[in-house]
Amino acid sequence: MRETWVVGAASTRYGRLPDSGREAATRVALEAMDRSGIDPKRIGQTYVSNAFGVAERQAHIGPLINTALGIPDVPSATIESACSSSSAGLHEAFVHVASGFADAVLVVGVEKLSHLDTLTATSYFAMGADYPFETRNGATFPGLYATLANVHARKYGTRSEELGAIAVKNHANAARNPHAHFQKEISMDTYLGSPIIASPLRLYDCCPFSDGAAAVVVAAREVVGAPSAEPLVIRASARAGSIADMQDRPELTGLAATQTAAVAAFRQAGIGPEKVDFLEVHDCFTIAEVMALEDLGFYAKGSAAKASADGETARDGKLPVNPSGGLKAKGHPVSATGAGQVVEIFEQFNHEAGARQVPRTEWALAHNVGATGGSCSVHLFQHR
Amino acid sequence: MRETWVVGAASTRYGRLPDSGREAATRVALEAMDRSGIDPKRIGQTYVSNAFGVAERQAHIGPLINTALGIPDVPSATIESACSSSSAGLHEAFVHVASGFADAVLVVGVEKLSHLDTLTATSYFAMGADYPFETRNGATFPGLYATLANVHARKYGTRSEELGAIAVKNHANAARNPHAHFQKEISMDTYLGSPIIASPLRLYDCCPFSDGAAAVVVAAREVVGAPSAEPLVIRASARAGSIADMQDRPELTGLAATQTAAVAAFRQAGIGPEKVDFLEVHDCFTIAEVMALEDLGFYAKGSAAKASADGETARDGKLPVNPSGGLKAKGHPVSATGAGQVVEIFEQFNHEAGARQVPRTEWALAHNVGATGGSCSVHLFQHR
Repeated sequence: MRETWVVGAASTRYGRLPDSGREAATRVALEAMDRSGIDPKRIGQTYVSNAFGVAERQAHIGPLINTALGIPDVPSATIESACSSSSAGLHEAFVHVASGFADAVLVVGVEKLSHLDTLTATSYFAMGADYPFETRNGATFPGLYATLANVHARKYGTRSEELGAIAVKNHANAARNPHAHFQKEISMDTYLGSPIIASPLRLYDCCPFSDGAAAVVVAAREVVGAPSAEPLVIRASARAGSIADMQDRPELTGLAATQTAAVAAFRQAGIGPEKVDFLEVHDCFTIAEVMALEDLGFYAKGSAAKASADGETARDGKLPVNPSGGLKAKGHPVSATGAGQVVEIFEQFNHEAGARQVPRTEWALAHNVGATGGSCSVHLFQHR
Repeated sequence: MRETWVVGAASTRYGRLPDSGREAATRVALEAMDRSGIDPKRIGQTYVSNAFGVAERQAHIGPLINTALGIPDVPSATIESACSSSSAGLHEAFVHVASGFADAVLVVGVEKLSHLDTLTATSYFAMGADYPFETRNGATFPGLYATLANVHARKYGTRSEELGAIAVKNHANAARNPHAHFQKEISMDTYLGSPIIASPLRLYDCCPFSDGAAAVVVAAREVVGAPSAEPLVIRASARAGSIADMQDRPELTGLAATQTAAVAAFRQAGIGPEKVDFLEVHDCFTIAEVMALEDLGFYAKGSAAKASADGETARDGKLPVNPSGGLKAKGHPVSATGAGQVVEIFEQFNHEAGARQVPRTEWALAHNVGATGGSCSVHLFQHR
């Protein structure tokens, strides 16, 4: 198995794209390729994620991007795994490069839904859940994650102010991130004064609908030569699933797919959580950040919310979590989110994160969830 | 690289699915697993293709199918490459198994659009083309392929009766295929009397909109033990792209992606076209079968239409092409088509094809195109 690196990364600002998803995706793909220094002729495969491209009347987006990049003969495929689509694309890239099927692979994620009215956009997002059993009965993601929050609170006493502390922290990070959708801080008073969306979740517990695009270039160490930036060495690329419907799960205080993928990832990398310097985790709702920290093995069940409220996960805390601002405040352009987490880690490893720079950048973890955890990807990256 | 086999395959009848795409996909997945004799616990990954699942309000379909199969912890991803989606899934399966990342992988393709009115269904299919440059200007696939047919006819004198002979042949094969959408023969008179859809293409030059689902199980030879049916040894799995938009291509008498993928596939397998006993090719329109036979290297440019009219590609001809009936008459349930071609080859290799059985089954080729050739997959299978 060949040592496999992330050698280039680029992202739009999340929020509202003025151009089409296809144009934004092409733009970040070109930037990531430029940054990588990789000759486009070395690209053996591209993966594009664009779960809701049909909202722009465009499927089969890969050949359009490859043509724009000047590599039309390169095969492409579109990878969808709900909100974990582009981390699933990264996993495919890793497998192709590590196994020698390709020397270099481009991974792009993009979503644009801001031209739709909110109800239509919501109906697209909700397609990640189970239509006949969940969505058709009125469930949307705020309601489903509110259920998880209620079960967690009943068992562990998780408090609203603890969830609020995560929102305040992630907004503080996003305020320092030029890629972020919400570049503003909020106070605990603002959080507590915001309306209930699905009890106990308030407006500021929820990530926004964002447009955005992000791209990463993956290549075998042996074909890179002298990298043009500090690469991320991919030490683990693990994915897992879980029982798709929440009502059929034996346990609702965490996500089994995260637990399964985390165990596999730490085994692949040969390290434990104590080695990890900072994380990008899937905080589509604040309770999701709590569950992630517990399911990934960083905190015992029932202890992550308090630790977060105590500041341990702040940028200057002992374990910085979501220095980018996370889905909560950086934003959540569905299919771009997983690749975007890697862009953040790339910038952190290259000390380009400015006011949100974390102090230690030897090991980082990226955690990306599909829907309510029917899918999960966990990647571990080490500084060269 | 491990020798990699197709060890199970199953398909619905193409046409109109009475149940949902998800139910049909689950059904064929279970049948293919049963047929394979593989312990579901050996499945390391599943790929589902369902390009237009949003038409049933369902994305993220993999975890639903894995849950129904009793393997919820197994990761899944949805693979889209327009009409070549599930052959792209098969390629991913091949890479994972051949490289040792998984011992066995399930590949499923499904499409259901028959609940939509024809205009809406057409608008979904057309998303495989380039929206701003082709579709928005009124191009749909019959018009785009009619352009290819006109260019081919101008250069090589391709005649309507030659295209008609392909339609007549494929209907004759489909009439003997219980999986086929159109289980009826047509005469040349019926063909010539059918209305022009996009000149020179008539109604009977065009494949139908079909629902359908197909599944195949791929496994490493070393983990199979005694296979429960004759396996297909995957000797080549190649994909390629080409310039996405037809107006930007230097040449319109063939599809560059087919040519590129074919060269790669024959190189991988270490054989030439003369070894191949029969083919399943992507005949979304009759002209596409002509181009495929030429682009794949079976006939010189400009000679495949006449050879087809001379009966060479009939079931009992020297090179049987589309014994299943092809997209033209077996039907074309977009994302199921590529996996369905492999189901046909599996049944032929196992001498289960009844009245459409071809005489020689040592080597077979499957050719699956995305849209107008922005993507193409070519697989070569050998009898064990």
